[in-house]
Amino acid sequence: MLKRDYANQYCPVASTLEVVGERWTLLIIRDVFLGIRRFDELHKDLGIARNVLQARLERLVEEGVLVKRPYQERPLRCEYRLTEKGADLFPVLVALMKWGDRWLDDRGGPIELLHRDCGEPVGVELRCAAGHEVESGEIDVARRLVR
Amino acid sequence: MLKRDYANQYCPVASTLEVVGERWTLLIIRDVFLGIRRFDELHKDLGIARNVLQARLERLVEEGVLVKRPYQERPLRCEYRLTEKGADLFPVLVALMKWGDRWLDDRGGPIELLHRDCGEPVGVELRCAAGHEVESGEIDVARRLVR
Repeated sequence: MLKRDYANQYCPVASTLEVVGERWTLLIIRDVFLGIRRFDELHKDLGIARNVLQARLERLVEEGVLVKRPYQERPLRCEYRLTEKGADLFPVLVALMKWGDRWLDDRGGPIELLHRDCGEPVGVELRCAAGHEVESGEIDVARRLVR
Repeated sequence: MLKRDYANQYCPVASTLEVVGERWTLLIIRDVFLGIRRFDELHKDLGIARNVLQARLERLVEEGVLVKRPYQERPLRCEYRLTEKGADLFPVLVALMKWGDRWLDDRGGPIELLHRDCGEPVGVELRCAAGHEVESGEIDVARRLVR
């Protein structure tokens, strides 16, 4: 079990939420994953104020989650693409999606993620480095002493 | 690729964020996973205003993510426990943690999750129902038509 002075230390969950935990941010990232990459498309899809969307996008570019790239020269028009750091948020989105599918909607969810090679549905699993599938009750929390 | 009228439909990511996306909520759930279950302990660990903590806890109980249970009769004292619905958020937390460990801190993170049976570190993986490990670039998005 964790010691109580943990709160004063770096926590990767808290740090991640500092980057992607603001309202709308994960929905923007969801949209970019789904191919909605241009400001006006994002604005239309999300229905949020343009200044809020602009601020969120700028923050995500600053953080290196998104990169802004021109897709047209005259007039200059840009779209947002996921960096490697941004694309690595995919398991977070899938975990949120699967929880919603399981607990918030009994119709099974509007979209399904399919493995291109075999067509089977994709989910997230807890698995250890030895390859065992792991339940949340089978996990010990170890604190790293060398910090 | 998704059709543009998707925004008007149910989205499990957005719905999940309605339940757990408020500031502090996922950190409360993190703490309960780590065994910090009592109001005063949570207050001390998180350092947030008592009324904010109270509001978040009440919402999580209403949503069936946490349940409030007495641990002492005189005076009555309660603690918060994860329901099955709440415990099922574990992959979300692990996905956030692993992203933070990888991208926000080069020291490797303060804690490690270990598989109790074999001692190996635990992470999240995208995997399809046929058992294949899947990269985010190997996924097709299929839209369910029967809604």
